[in-house]
Amino acid sequence: MNEDQALAAVEKSLKKRRFEHTLRVTEEAEILARRYNVDVKKTRLAAILHDYAKYRPVDEMKETVKQNGLSRSLLTYSDEILHAFVGAFYVEKELHVTDRQILSAIRYHTTGRANMTPIEKVVFLADYIEPGRTFNAVEIVRDMAKLDLDRACFFALKNIIQFIVSKDEAVYPETFEAYNDFALLLQRRI
Amino acid sequence: MNEDQALAAVEKSLKKRRFEHTLRVTEEAEILARRYNVDVKKTRLAAILHDYAKYRPVDEMKETVKQNGLSRSLLTYSDEILHAFVGAFYVEKELHVTDRQILSAIRYHTTGRANMTPIEKVVFLADYIEPGRTFNAVEIVRDMAKLDLDRACFFALKNIIQFIVSKDEAVYPETFEAYNDFALLLQRRI
Repeated sequence: MNEDQALAAVEKSLKKRRFEHTLRVTEEAEILARRYNVDVKKTRLAAILHDYAKYRPVDEMKETVKQNGLSRSLLTYSDEILHAFVGAFYVEKELHVTDRQILSAIRYHTTGRANMTPIEKVVFLADYIEPGRTFNAVEIVRDMAKLDLDRACFFALKNIIQFIVSKDEAVYPETFEAYNDFALLLQRRI
Repeated sequence: MNEDQALAAVEKSLKKRRFEHTLRVTEEAEILARRYNVDVKKTRLAAILHDYAKYRPVDEMKETVKQNGLSRSLLTYSDEILHAFVGAFYVEKELHVTDRQILSAIRYHTTGRANMTPIEKVVFLADYIEPGRTFNAVEIVRDMAKLDLDRACFFALKNIIQFIVSKDEAVYPETFEAYNDFALLLQRRI
């Protein structure tokens, strides 16, 4: 699948506003990929496809989880994370993308996980800091992303956890694992 | 081991200020145990012994972890949690307390864990809200503790996570698991 085919598939699946977000994430991901020596072509393809399942009905995605042996914990936590895990599944099944790096970058773009690969970090972070984002502290993470990919991912995860915990909601376990992984990594670096 | 023997062992092991804290935790734990129908005698004994290892040298506790097959993850996270896990081990080995409920209440009094037992919740919470505690939000948790043991534990865990994350430090995984466990429990209750 080339970029034009991916863009066409995604444009059909997304609302205009979400498609524009996807284009900004793709541009941001390319900047990060060049900065941190990550494969630009794969990164762009993962970024284009990262929200492929964003508008699938939640019930359909839950059914997909159940019928295809995806982690049952996806049914327990916020519906917000389904589109990432199920998205990777649909991108493989429907668009026939088989590259493991691209699929895992899609799968973990919302939650993160422990031991993230470089392309996973880049797509996760690009989604978090693309120019359309306006939440508190995004400027701080943008500045960090210019200097240190791990530190920027860590601060994004920290903000995500603080936000979810402030709402008294459960946090997907892999997000906690990602946070701890970066916290211990950065601690060892000092 | 009766209460007087436990108090004597603990008074010898702790500084005066910490021993006074222990007495306040024991009183608070008894109040909570009566309120939530938990065995008062066991709860008091666990509370008396909860900080038994507080002043053991960190190096000695780490050696104990290594030589006795306690979880290696105890060496990775904050030294603050060692005294709870190693404390339960010392209380069994040195004071010959064998009651599983008492030992696990000591073990998890700092971190919590998923599926906490009633006595674990009571000792964890009593340690958090005893009258000597003065941090922000303690009054809110004290009020909650009068009405709902699970909700009070959840808010204590929430505050603990927010505090640790605000310092950019790693959070012991069982604390995250405890938080999620209560979050999902309270969510199901609504």
